Amino acid sequence: MQIRIERQSNRPGTAPPVYRQIAAQIRQRVERGELREGDRLPPIRELALRLGVNRDTVSTAYEWLADEGVVDAQVGRGTFVRGRRPRPPLGAVLPEVPLSPGAERLLEYERSRVAYGAGRDAIPLHALAPDPRLFPVTAFRRALSRAFARDGAELLAYGAPAGHAGLRTLLAERLRAAGTAVGPESVVLCQGASQGLSLALRLFCEAGDQVAVEEPTYHNALATLTGLGLRVAPVPMRAEGADLDALDQTLARPEVKAFYTIPTFHNPMGITTSLEHRTELLAVAARRGKPVIEDAYECDLRYAGRPVPSLAGLDEAGAVVQLLSFSKSLFPGLRSGAVVARGRAMDALLALRHAMDLGGALPLQAALSDFLRTGAYDRHLARLRRHLRSRRDALLGALEETMPAGTVWTRPEGGYQVWLDLPSPMDSREVYADGLRAGVLVAPGFQFHGDGRPSRGLRLSIAAADEPAIRTGVERLASVLRERLAALGPGRSAPVHV
Amino acid sequence: MQIRIERQSNRPGTAPPVYRQIAAQIRQRVERGELREGDRLPPIRELALRLGVNRDTVSTAYEWLADEGVVDAQVGRGTFVRGRRPRPPLGAVLPEVPLSPGAERLLEYERSRVAYGAGRDAIPLHALAPDPRLFPVTAFRRALSRAFARDGAELLAYGAPAGHAGLRTLLAERLRAAGTAVGPESVVLCQGASQGLSLALRLFCEAGDQVAVEEPTYHNALATLTGLGLRVAPVPMRAEGADLDALDQTLARPEVKAFYTIPTFHNPMGITTSLEHRTELLAVAARRGKPVIEDAYECDLRYAGRPVPSLAGLDEAGAVVQLLSFSKSLFPGLRSGAVVARGRAMDALLALRHAMDLGGALPLQAALSDFLRTGAYDRHLARLRRHLRSRRDALLGALEETMPAGTVWTRPEGGYQVWLDLPSPMDSREVYADGLRAGVLVAPGFQFHGDGRPSRGLRLSIAAADEPAIRTGVERLASVLRERLAALGPGRSAPVHV
Repeated sequence: MQIRIERQSNRPGTAPPVYRQIAAQIRQRVERGELREGDRLPPIRELALRLGVNRDTVSTAYEWLADEGVVDAQVGRGTFVRGRRPRPPLGAVLPEVPLSPGAERLLEYERSRVAYGAGRDAIPLHALAPDPRLFPVTAFRRALSRAFARDGAELLAYGAPAGHAGLRTLLAERLRAAGTAVGPESVVLCQGASQGLSLALRLFCEAGDQVAVEEPTYHNALATLTGLGLRVAPVPMRAEGADLDALDQTLARPEVKAFYTIPTFHNPMGITTSLEHRTELLAVAARRGKPVIEDAYECDLRYAGRPVPSLAGLDEAGAVVQLLSFSKSLFPGLRSGAVVARGRAMDALLALRHAMDLGGALPLQAALSDFLRTGAYDRHLARLRRHLRSRRDALLGALEETMPAGTVWTRPEGGYQVWLDLPSPMDSREVYADGLRAGVLVAPGFQFHGDGRPSRGLRLSIAAADEPAIRTGVERLASVLRERLAALGPGRSAPVHV
Repeated sequence: MQIRIERQSNRPGTAPPVYRQIAAQIRQRVERGELREGDRLPPIRELALRLGVNRDTVSTAYEWLADEGVVDAQVGRGTFVRGRRPRPPLGAVLPEVPLSPGAERLLEYERSRVAYGAGRDAIPLHALAPDPRLFPVTAFRRALSRAFARDGAELLAYGAPAGHAGLRTLLAERLRAAGTAVGPESVVLCQGASQGLSLALRLFCEAGDQVAVEEPTYHNALATLTGLGLRVAPVPMRAEGADLDALDQTLARPEVKAFYTIPTFHNPMGITTSLEHRTELLAVAARRGKPVIEDAYECDLRYAGRPVPSLAGLDEAGAVVQLLSFSKSLFPGLRSGAVVARGRAMDALLALRHAMDLGGALPLQAALSDFLRTGAYDRHLARLRRHLRSRRDALLGALEETMPAGTVWTRPEGGYQVWLDLPSPMDSREVYADGLRAGVLVAPGFQFHGDGRPSRGLRLSIAAADEPAIRTGVERLASVLRERLAALGPGRSAPVHV
């Protein structure tokens, strides 16, 4: 039996361990029929000598093959090849397994999404994924090493469903500093604001229920609702936030179980509601006895203007569940976020989290805790905010210079997104397609509608493009719009800022 | 204004950064009313001189306070304290927010659970959480460092919902080696088998549907079902596995949408079904057109006997969705598992995962991938299996020596759990309570029943206790049983092994 061994170089991982190489080659011979049922493998000592390896290595290879059912070790007799059982053919024609209506609805929803993949080389003004060039990778690696050195095995055991105690304490401190009177017992860590939303919706709603959402709203929230079998009750967005009369009427309906809102740096609109709007919103929700899910996913990204107290901070009725995230302010890849809730909502949240996936991975939570405690997060935020402010200024300046009359846009004080209202008869889907051809990606507004109907809004993002790219991207978009307008004829008014 | 600064020692993290200390003390003074609206903070240069710190440090502290809304910086004039807004009182009496029926059912389910916390000093024969003394922490830390060094920022960006490509490829290789003909496109990484089950159930079921489950079965699976608004259709377990006639009748009912089964090292019973049982089970499911969710959470923990092909490996109809986990074979704290599925089920799985939490954290997946590729996982498994085999032998030996006549137990070939059938008139809940008092924790059987009705089964686990502890624990359990039997009078038969 010929066996070829590739030695491990100094760089670990370049070749599989020797025992695996031996085992793999023997298995291959069995699979090819070169070794048959009942054939005896060479004695361990003999093969070790022939290959110039330690006997333990061969013995480990044989044990592995025995564990995998390829051979049998018979004490005092040797190691023998076992019979093979027929395998199901790869790529066999599979009949359709019936899926749940929820899964079918979600598949249908997914088919309606924009596939941005086609614009790999275009200027990315479409996504809210933060810029890897601004990632504090080294500082985070250090935090991770320290956390591991300190707590080792403890971080690798099951944790409480609420997550790492140190991180929860730090988050509660930050919340209190920002005016939300909560302790760590009100904070559950989760996989980004995204899992937070899944949990919060399940707190209050079951399949068939409706959820009031701003229109337009975050498109992945629409996917989450769809996946849970929930329906969208749209509340139109005005320049100052959700239309509160419409909200009142919507929440009055018994089938509407909660309101999902993004009051700070709204997605996709980029606007922040005033203290007055927030107070009134909470009064409406309280009058109708409906809970409010506040998505505060970008709340650490304010780079201008004055902070407005969060709904959770203003809430005295325990009716607000707040979602936090480190995905936009630090790294999305940590999948770190939190849900803030009080009273029985918190008990139920913990039970739902445990039933969903038992809880989160402690190592990354511990690293994040270290990263916050040592001030590395605040240092990163200070730097990130400076960059974002400069990018926002570049974006607003470029829009001012290039956009045709009749175009209107928002002026965010934080976060990544600006909302652009196109001159009237244009459809966002067509502008998106033109932009793609012109080398700029924008997020077309229709996807922020629960029913996917046409929109003349576009979301522009400063997350991934730097100042020169932003300027070029906006110029490309402007020429797309000018061409469309030229085709339509004259008659536009001057830009208005919402 | 008095400000006290604690210098950072060499050990990072022992004191907050200096700017945070300054900011915190100023904030405290504002909160206490010692500094009032309109008060001017000392000029940056002056305070820096007084505290003996860099001007940038004071300036960062002031910026932080401005970001948090505590002060206002007015160009050319100085930094001024802003007005405070009233805070909601901590611990305010909160009215009850109405929760969803699913959340209420789950809270009720949680109340019925055993609170093992009371037995902190008892010998732990109850849980399936692996022994931290056997954790390969150092090897894993190395894998994590290598993964970070290699892929840095890439691991901190959003990943695909399916997870780290390298780990999926390695898992597919291992599956193929064990006889399941799949490629990486059939593997989705998830947060332990637990999230895998949440996803798999949502693939096929909606609130109100029923799911066939073995009885007894894994109690957290019952919680997952409850949380999703699903009901349990029990199929009794026999010595050789689920009763297939009962399964056939149950799956024939249209409201039953899927079958959840643990064919290898069953939880809680520890038994492994035969190839014949598996083949017949798949035939039953195919006849009734119902999908099978195969929980293979301990499949890497075989330490005796011959491997039996998995249901996923035998499945030629694409009707099996398989759940894998590293929680029992490596570290639960990684929250690493996978779902194996084919065809449209895989499309829907990815959409559901994206809608649930967008996807998992890449850093730990990349580390695990390195850990597998370099053979560290296999080396760990070899060592872990030796330990488990020795612990199982200790457990079976101790049971043989000490259990009263009429007690019956299983003999697992892998995994952590042995199922004990108590002499007839005893109830598991009472034996659990007696055991707790005697200093041994066992898992009472009632909690593995969907309806929580009494059971005379106990689950004993070798996960966390070593050989001497196992022997002592079993002796304690035996004396509890002897006392109960003495109170009942004579008339028992000899032990029978199932």
